Amino acid sequence: MKLLRYGAPGAEKPGLLDQDGALRDLSGVISDVAGEALSDESLAKLRDLDPATLPLVDGDPRLGPCVGQVGKFICIGLNYADHAAESGMALPEEPVIFFKATLAICGPNDDVEIPRTSVKSDWEVELGVVIGKHTKYVSKEDALDHVAGYCVVNDLSERDFQLHRSGQWVKGKSCDTFGPIGPWLVTRDEVADPQDLAMYLEVNGHRYQDGSTQTMHFDVATVISHLSQFMSLQPGDVISTGTPPGVGMGQTPETYLKPGDKMELGIAGLGVQKQNVVAG
Amino acid sequence: MKLLRYGAPGAEKPGLLDQDGALRDLSGVISDVAGEALSDESLAKLRDLDPATLPLVDGDPRLGPCVGQVGKFICIGLNYADHAAESGMALPEEPVIFFKATLAICGPNDDVEIPRTSVKSDWEVELGVVIGKHTKYVSKEDALDHVAGYCVVNDLSERDFQLHRSGQWVKGKSCDTFGPIGPWLVTRDEVADPQDLAMYLEVNGHRYQDGSTQTMHFDVATVISHLSQFMSLQPGDVISTGTPPGVGMGQTPETYLKPGDKMELGIAGLGVQKQNVVAG
Repeated sequence: MKLLRYGAPGAEKPGLLDQDGALRDLSGVISDVAGEALSDESLAKLRDLDPATLPLVDGDPRLGPCVGQVGKFICIGLNYADHAAESGMALPEEPVIFFKATLAICGPNDDVEIPRTSVKSDWEVELGVVIGKHTKYVSKEDALDHVAGYCVVNDLSERDFQLHRSGQWVKGKSCDTFGPIGPWLVTRDEVADPQDLAMYLEVNGHRYQDGSTQTMHFDVATVISHLSQFMSLQPGDVISTGTPPGVGMGQTPETYLKPGDKMELGIAGLGVQKQNVVAG
Repeated sequence: MKLLRYGAPGAEKPGLLDQDGALRDLSGVISDVAGEALSDESLAKLRDLDPATLPLVDGDPRLGPCVGQVGKFICIGLNYADHAAESGMALPEEPVIFFKATLAICGPNDDVEIPRTSVKSDWEVELGVVIGKHTKYVSKEDALDHVAGYCVVNDLSERDFQLHRSGQWVKGKSCDTFGPIGPWLVTRDEVADPQDLAMYLEVNGHRYQDGSTQTMHFDVATVISHLSQFMSLQPGDVISTGTPPGVGMGQTPETYLKPGDKMELGIAGLGVQKQNVVAG
């Protein structure tokens, strides 16, 4: 299933994309694509529905982030060997964890704002993992059973804030609109192998990132198991699993986003995001 | 006013402590001590109530975290010069920001769990600042107008996770129960000077931390203004402003928490927390 949320910011309704690519309303079935609606039991019920019986949504509404009420927005840093190299950083011995503010989350095609004092706003296409049930001290073997589904994430990053404004990356990762998520949450039964997904990101039509989750250093199961040794994960938590090479900081010369730029990014089977860059 | 939340975890009700120290129920007035209930307008309405007209709460219920639905749990690192020195770290040029998981938040007297693989679980008494209204690009001069009130925070920290498990402090800061908040939120009108508050922390009756917010490096107004340049702050966000010297990592020899320990910590006018340490 492709689950999604549509409507005005903060007032999104749950929906799904049917096999013909039409948007169907799920408001009568679940209150949101969030929390307990992401459990195996809930997803099984949704899967049993005949989409043709759900109301068709008219027009072409805005898509919101494909998950609501996100409790934690966790990112894994330097998780592709070639991206670590382009960043001039060593490949870590364990997953590097950082958080983005959940308030940074926005819809997949919403405008991305450049913060007022930004000089180095950068892009990162990433595989997002949405947790479906309470997870603590889980083994690597059982970890993928805790996944509700997958989505595209753009982990926008202000490199000057992140690296040169006194310690800890969160400062460059949490700016408003720095976390487009979606267009939809693809349930895990429809993703045959999360470690074999092509991914790309273009700015103004130029393809800067062209990679695959095949080259991920710590795979999804390892990341979930590792995280759960340090903190509980809850339904609706989003884990963004790192980016392949091709970020702006890795270009020669370094290349950063400016108002007027257009980004397009996607992951095989998970859909495409398109964002206009605007002044904050 | 001293606002609080009481009852079972996840089902707390709003309340206030009256001038006689009795607990009064606010369920008929606000749904929670959270979000828009923290606005100046809402707090003014609560202030106009005669506490004697509010239902007395029987018995001695558990106190929950004094703020609900926290969107961001932001901490400021190395914000007391003498604590930076005891940590062997340089005093930063700008506030060091990191996040704790909001799921780490617990009541002021709840048990604190030592994670299974922990070897260096440590304490930190801190002044917590609770945001009362939307805050973006705010000046230092206007920053304190955005504060709903203040509270005690114990910013528990696993030093091995934080410093020696591959980059970024969040890994040692976000463990379940690593964020007791309360006992109450003291509204800002009752805190004459947030930069002149005595604070202490004891383990098993030994006073390890005995400081004052006077020696804070970046004051509350500076911290709020700085944060708001990087991300929007919302009502109910909690900012923990750093700890004075006396943490376990700074002792000779280093001293860490173990199951059976008892912590007590407090800040002048903001109340006292007491936690038992248990195995996770």
